[in-house]
Amino acid sequence: MLDAASCAALDALPHANAALAARFAPGEPGTLYLDANSIGPMPADVPERIAALLDRGWRGARRRSWNEAGWLQQPRALGAALSRVLGCGGDDVLVADSTSINHHKLLQLALAAAAPRRMVVIEDQVFPSNRYAAEAIAHAGGANLRGIDSIAALEAALTPGDVAVVSLSHVDYRSGERLDMAACTALAHRHGALALWDLSHSAGALAVDLLGCDVDLAVGCGYKYLCGGPGAPSWLYVHTRWQDSAWPALAGWMGHADTFGFARDYVPAPGIARQQAGTPAVIANATFAAAAQLWREVDPVALHERHRSLTDTLVQLVDEQLAPRGLVLAGPREHARRGGHVALRFEAGNVQPLGQALVAAGAVVSTRQPDALRLAPHPLTTRHDELWDAVVRIAEVLDSGRWREARFQGASI
Amino acid sequence: MLDAASCAALDALPHANAALAARFAPGEPGTLYLDANSIGPMPADVPERIAALLDRGWRGARRRSWNEAGWLQQPRALGAALSRVLGCGGDDVLVADSTSINHHKLLQLALAAAAPRRMVVIEDQVFPSNRYAAEAIAHAGGANLRGIDSIAALEAALTPGDVAVVSLSHVDYRSGERLDMAACTALAHRHGALALWDLSHSAGALAVDLLGCDVDLAVGCGYKYLCGGPGAPSWLYVHTRWQDSAWPALAGWMGHADTFGFARDYVPAPGIARQQAGTPAVIANATFAAAAQLWREVDPVALHERHRSLTDTLVQLVDEQLAPRGLVLAGPREHARRGGHVALRFEAGNVQPLGQALVAAGAVVSTRQPDALRLAPHPLTTRHDELWDAVVRIAEVLDSGRWREARFQGASI
Repeated sequence: MLDAASCAALDALPHANAALAARFAPGEPGTLYLDANSIGPMPADVPERIAALLDRGWRGARRRSWNEAGWLQQPRALGAALSRVLGCGGDDVLVADSTSINHHKLLQLALAAAAPRRMVVIEDQVFPSNRYAAEAIAHAGGANLRGIDSIAALEAALTPGDVAVVSLSHVDYRSGERLDMAACTALAHRHGALALWDLSHSAGALAVDLLGCDVDLAVGCGYKYLCGGPGAPSWLYVHTRWQDSAWPALAGWMGHADTFGFARDYVPAPGIARQQAGTPAVIANATFAAAAQLWREVDPVALHERHRSLTDTLVQLVDEQLAPRGLVLAGPREHARRGGHVALRFEAGNVQPLGQALVAAGAVVSTRQPDALRLAPHPLTTRHDELWDAVVRIAEVLDSGRWREARFQGASI
Repeated sequence: MLDAASCAALDALPHANAALAARFAPGEPGTLYLDANSIGPMPADVPERIAALLDRGWRGARRRSWNEAGWLQQPRALGAALSRVLGCGGDDVLVADSTSINHHKLLQLALAAAAPRRMVVIEDQVFPSNRYAAEAIAHAGGANLRGIDSIAALEAALTPGDVAVVSLSHVDYRSGERLDMAACTALAHRHGALALWDLSHSAGALAVDLLGCDVDLAVGCGYKYLCGGPGAPSWLYVHTRWQDSAWPALAGWMGHADTFGFARDYVPAPGIARQQAGTPAVIANATFAAAAQLWREVDPVALHERHRSLTDTLVQLVDEQLAPRGLVLAGPREHARRGGHVALRFEAGNVQPLGQALVAAGAVVSTRQPDALRLAPHPLTTRHDELWDAVVRIAEVLDSGRWREARFQGASI
């Protein structure tokens, strides 16, 4: 049976990333943040970096900054910084645009690479935006869709031999279930299909091994575990074997081989650079650069172990303290099958008023209708004793019954 | 013959937007900024707004801000704020993604609306990224392209009756020449084609009348005259008659009719909202919100008159002071045919070392190879006496000959 002391004892164990916690800004005193699946914590030097950018880069230097401040190099530099925790080469990642836009880019790239195959296999219950990208391409006549109702159906869906690309989420945004990236990718390859992975709920929470899993294409959110800031740009990865295989679907001047040559005709830049379209989001990128510096320093193995320790502890605390109160583990019990967050199910039904009451009580969690409650520690900042405090607070709210009166403010990210 | 006193006298004349100049942050003392075509001036309250967003919205509130801080409403709110200076309805503009990405969206929308027509007419010398979007769609088999070498060729290009959309720049990014938006749009309509306009070099510099010109689709840059900040998101406009005519090409969860219903199948939101794809760029949008507040207050007619006065003055100063030194007017002499900037031609040839020397001397201008020098005052902040000072400084650099030794740092935005 865990208690405050045993949780604090876990925090006392040394680990390679321990010093990095102090480089994040502390949250509000007394607030327990279990929302890294929505917005990760803020690196402490973001305000200073942004104040300098605004004052020197914008107010003072104006257009001179394009040349002098490295603004046009940010998408590649940020990608290189993330490559360590993604397990890939520094030249194979780009930070630009949103996750949804990048899904369009990578699906179109896969369809071009696998032509004349035009079938996209996608889970019915994947994060909706991923599916909407595929649907829109199909709607415009550029692909066919084959939905699968679970990962168990993947092999059957591949068997006809007509599949161009399998679009999968590494971690389910509701249950937190983590797929076996290496096995699913190998299965796709055996049937001649590419594998496109969304890592929004794993990158930054766990060690990822894109190269080791031989992943073709990947994309992920910048503002969750990667701590890029609210609405941060997304990252995308293209394996070297596909980088020069086709024109980018969303061609733009920043992906031209000679941007400032202003040539009439498009010539794609070599490598990942062609996946850039428009002008970089300078301020958003400068914000992301604070976390990117940390990701350069993060030991991915220690990150993974810390995530295991935190979420294993959380699972045990849920079993011991919350399950008797009707809030039970819904996601995987084994760490190898778990992504960033721990998913709970509220047996009483509609979880939204409870989620609202917890937020009001200073336990920042998130919900997904009808009955999923998500607890998402961040492996660089969350302490085990905060998990104890959070579970105690959740139990208090459940016991009080006051969550029944909470006014639901509307679903959110 | 203009001089310092006559320029200062022009600054003394009252105009409706005069008080707004004080709401921008002053630049570096002694520096003359003629680069609003690259990055517009910074509203004074940006640093305070962003510091608050970072501290309260990110560090403190974390995911609660999605509900509490209006982050998801920003794209529509920013669009509504810009609608006055764009001359259109507040529900017809959206701020999201980059200008290049938005070009893809609007070209695809036009092609869907005009099907089975599939011809895109575009100027050969348009801003390259606009053309690259059309090329990429054609490359993927979704359109045919017909280039025109000047606007005079537009009618002949439309005459076959197969044109889906004409993609035009309101103002040429090099010469500053402004097209007749109403006439070109009417010509396209007479031939059954839609008109898509890029207003990157006019919106925020001049009064624009999208509704009055019956424009179908428009897009523009946020970081130039609109002062949204370096790399700010772009805006896009869709006439009400087309808003619900087709699925958005780049469908995503934020453009779904019920984003947080997490439905499996895509159902486009009504109106302009469907043109959203991914999560809003929160920090970039909050930056843009400072200028957006000013655009709500700007009198477009007074803005237009101020631009006329500034650029007419600049043309006269160039004629009187710079033309004798080999730097001559290259763009239009009549204001009705002139966009945001005044374009000069350097008769000695390669303009890049001169541009570099001027920037080093504190006259922030921009160049486009081989021989174009661009001077871009901002009609909300630039004073006529600064134009005099700038021309004097340019003349000094030309007379000194020291520009010949300037080291070119590379072309830029």
